[in-house]
Amino acid sequence: MRIALCQTNPIVGDLAGNAQKILAWSQRAVDEQADLAVFPELCVVGYPPQDLMDRPSFMDEVNDAVDYVAHQLPSGLAALIGAPVRNDDKTGKRLFNAALLIENGAITGTAYKALLPTYDVFDEFRQFEPGDARHVVRFRGRKLGLHVCEDMWNNKEIAPFHLYNANPIDELAAVGAELFVNLSASPFAVGKSEERTQLIQESCREHGLPFVYVNQVGANTELIFDGDSRVHAADGSILWHAKSFEEDFFVWDTEETPSTSLTRHLSQERRNSDVAQIHDALVLGISDYVEKTGPSVFSKALVGLSGGIDSAVTCALAVAALGPDRVVGVTMPSKYSSGGSVDDSHALAKSLGIEFHNVSIKPAVEAFGEMLEPLFVGTDEGVAEENIQARARAVTLMALSNKFGYLLLSTGNKSEMAVGYATLYGDMSGGLAVLADVFKTQVYELAHHINERAGNELIPQNTIAKPPSAELKPGQLDQDSLPPYDVLDTILDHYIEELNSAEDIVRETGYDEALIARIIRMVDRNEYKRRQAAPGLRVSEKAFGVGRRVPIVMRRTAIAKEPLDRL
Amino acid sequence: MRIALCQTNPIVGDLAGNAQKILAWSQRAVDEQADLAVFPELCVVGYPPQDLMDRPSFMDEVNDAVDYVAHQLPSGLAALIGAPVRNDDKTGKRLFNAALLIENGAITGTAYKALLPTYDVFDEFRQFEPGDARHVVRFRGRKLGLHVCEDMWNNKEIAPFHLYNANPIDELAAVGAELFVNLSASPFAVGKSEERTQLIQESCREHGLPFVYVNQVGANTELIFDGDSRVHAADGSILWHAKSFEEDFFVWDTEETPSTSLTRHLSQERRNSDVAQIHDALVLGISDYVEKTGPSVFSKALVGLSGGIDSAVTCALAVAALGPDRVVGVTMPSKYSSGGSVDDSHALAKSLGIEFHNVSIKPAVEAFGEMLEPLFVGTDEGVAEENIQARARAVTLMALSNKFGYLLLSTGNKSEMAVGYATLYGDMSGGLAVLADVFKTQVYELAHHINERAGNELIPQNTIAKPPSAELKPGQLDQDSLPPYDVLDTILDHYIEELNSAEDIVRETGYDEALIARIIRMVDRNEYKRRQAAPGLRVSEKAFGVGRRVPIVMRRTAIAKEPLDRL
Repeated sequence: MRIALCQTNPIVGDLAGNAQKILAWSQRAVDEQADLAVFPELCVVGYPPQDLMDRPSFMDEVNDAVDYVAHQLPSGLAALIGAPVRNDDKTGKRLFNAALLIENGAITGTAYKALLPTYDVFDEFRQFEPGDARHVVRFRGRKLGLHVCEDMWNNKEIAPFHLYNANPIDELAAVGAELFVNLSASPFAVGKSEERTQLIQESCREHGLPFVYVNQVGANTELIFDGDSRVHAADGSILWHAKSFEEDFFVWDTEETPSTSLTRHLSQERRNSDVAQIHDALVLGISDYVEKTGPSVFSKALVGLSGGIDSAVTCALAVAALGPDRVVGVTMPSKYSSGGSVDDSHALAKSLGIEFHNVSIKPAVEAFGEMLEPLFVGTDEGVAEENIQARARAVTLMALSNKFGYLLLSTGNKSEMAVGYATLYGDMSGGLAVLADVFKTQVYELAHHINERAGNELIPQNTIAKPPSAELKPGQLDQDSLPPYDVLDTILDHYIEELNSAEDIVRETGYDEALIARIIRMVDRNEYKRRQAAPGLRVSEKAFGVGRRVPIVMRRTAIAKEPLDRL
Repeated sequence: MRIALCQTNPIVGDLAGNAQKILAWSQRAVDEQADLAVFPELCVVGYPPQDLMDRPSFMDEVNDAVDYVAHQLPSGLAALIGAPVRNDDKTGKRLFNAALLIENGAITGTAYKALLPTYDVFDEFRQFEPGDARHVVRFRGRKLGLHVCEDMWNNKEIAPFHLYNANPIDELAAVGAELFVNLSASPFAVGKSEERTQLIQESCREHGLPFVYVNQVGANTELIFDGDSRVHAADGSILWHAKSFEEDFFVWDTEETPSTSLTRHLSQERRNSDVAQIHDALVLGISDYVEKTGPSVFSKALVGLSGGIDSAVTCALAVAALGPDRVVGVTMPSKYSSGGSVDDSHALAKSLGIEFHNVSIKPAVEAFGEMLEPLFVGTDEGVAEENIQARARAVTLMALSNKFGYLLLSTGNKSEMAVGYATLYGDMSGGLAVLADVFKTQVYELAHHINERAGNELIPQNTIAKPPSAELKPGQLDQDSLPPYDVLDTILDHYIEELNSAEDIVRETGYDEALIARIIRMVDRNEYKRRQAAPGLRVSEKAFGVGRRVPIVMRRTAIAKEPLDRL
């Protein structure tokens, strides 16, 4: 049997476009003598469709799209596609997350997702009823162990934090599956590909069965899907491995002996470093945000250039995503800006080959000073005055965005967003926060990677070397308010990703207890800023935004200790 | 048996404070000879605790708090309290949402919530495993049908959209419950109290059992809990009904014959109009946001006054919540502002008795004009220029907020937020969006209600009477860009709350198809603005924000029709 793996990039809600894409790739599968074309989870609607599925008329349209694909499918080919389907039972959630076998204009087999991720960025229990993945789907004399994404993840070694009572992989093997087929929409995070490999290899070896894994590729708002589709042989070895962060296609002949020709893109050869993966993920995140929203909405991307490393890296990623002709940089010096800020910004724009503007914010800052003078009389200069500068820049950038249809990219990194070292409605402004899930120490790695990849100094050495500064008051340095970034990022990683307590962090890092308590307080009390942040591209297992839901209004106290923070 | 209903207002995460509150109210219960004190769902942590519960150290602290309450409880009294407890099974979500019977320093009975709401603003499947509510809890010879919130809601007549397979109410009756006891954290929405009454009365009558219902009161960020606790007799009649939107306490003697003295706050007498309920909900929402965050954070609330009805109503609500001494109003005229804007704002500030400032934004608007002139040369004035004005106001207000510790209240209503008739980082700025779930037509009702309640013209008649205008260009009126608000609000209600399609809305309203399609497109494409909006107080069954999760990057097309919107 010849199975075509179709690692496609759908657009959420674009039922007509997604259906056409499934049919186009199906034609390609037929052209290469495939019997079965396999597509990602929910490929008809794009993942995540979220509450679009609550609308009955949307589900009618989904049914129409499935029906259309089934009827238009090239003859002789069957396809496995993913779509939400209605639950006809009188009780339970109203939908199933289904893998559908379609052939000759009809649905000839189904598997409903049994394990519904409802943690982090996933909300599948909002709409879906758990299905029964415990039956095989028969296709041309074979028994397929068909299942959907999370269904393969209930492995006690690898996924201890979201255990389910069912284990579809074991159950499918028990009822006679001869080949596992998984339709996924599994988002990228650093280390995720290796986890998938380990997980699938264990399933193959435990049950002595091969495994076909087809994952969505592409970015949808904050979620980036890497693809990473593969075929594993019954012994767990990888027979084929898709390219990451782009569409890819392969036909696997189940009868063919593995040969070197089959093993293109093998894990070891292909596997990029973490920083290279983050780079590619962010580039895809930017380009899909712009292209899927529609080029008629956003003609170009716009970046405010401070001369610092965050805006330089953001700008370089935007150029990698859209090309230099579609990126505009603006430097906006104030009286506190160093000469380097403008020069380094200019040098960056020059090396990237982008349109560049210099707009001094002095007139606006002076105007606000004059307007507020009667109200501020007798007060000391402080954060209010610093924020006016950041916000004057935002007004300038948003004016350009509104006037010319530019997508403003915000440049704040995860370290700053964590502790609130950013101005709401100031530098936090933008449609997409490119580095929101990248710690400052990783931003430096990205800068080096970008320059290495380019083979020249795209990002000026001066930008990389100088000490970080917001330049909102004379001689200001980030390190005046924050610990060194390697210390800060270590604490943040423990608190945000590992969910460690202050005591845990003291024990594990040996850092000062008061410092750790201060950082934790800063993270907690700046939730109100993050709630109004632009959506941020997710590259870790725990990004701020939709996957981390914490109260804004709260106090943290405990019994038998001093209150942690009576804010 | 004497049962004390304790309708308390906990603070999320404030384990020490919440424990002390439980103990203080327990003392009150003892003082009134109660045998059992009943508190709301998750009263130890405050609802919703969200992902705080993912942190192991938090759960340790919750255990400590439960233990502390159990040991400190006045002797002779038992209490029913709500807390998350760990699931010791090797599979399943890691926590249960528990009602705990505590007495003599120990937990002597439990009920784990069986029906876990995971829709709209609820995410209970993120952390909780469904429990088994199918056993009674024995207390002093009585069999209590103890259950938690949603467990009572699986009624096919009343809750057809989120049916579960279990029905704890029926199951508890089947195993011999003699009295239903429900611990809730059920947020307010217009009409919710009547739904609860209907639901509880049906349960009472069907099983011939009385019903004790204790619901949380208070606001936690966007969610407002009305309380609405009650005792229903076995025939369904209401024996006691708590005040809404404030803490309340009552001791019910199960042996006592209902008398008129018992029936204080009866439904019919007490029930306020929808607009009065919305008023009280919003006032509580503002005051709890400020008080729970801590008065050391926010000294006062700040409102930008345009002379229009939204800012006037927001300001009046803030005064009702915090008192006139803790509200500051600022009018910020531009060259397009009518004289009435300043005068009406001034009149409002005078009638409310608040501090008032007039800061012209002319200098800032001129400065931005000068700064952008070289870049804007040859373009027509438009939205970019209009937004500069709205953003210059936001910079001004945020400067005051940062300087003096004021909470900026944003004033946009649900109609504007729906269609994007608002400026991101402009009038959308603020820590709390008071009217974000109130349609424009309801804002007028609120204005009339506020004046009626005050017995004088708190909100100037001129503000109510004049046609709405953003005043961002000469002679601009809302109705130049939007249909009349009664038409707009009807369409929005159908699309957002009823989830109707364009075709449905045409059929049900008879309005122009092109108009309806245009409004729907506006709602869909302005999701990016709403994602960055301030948290908005929720008063309807479908508010924007955490309870409505739709993609930002998407296209809406369907098969066999022209694409609806290829943006």
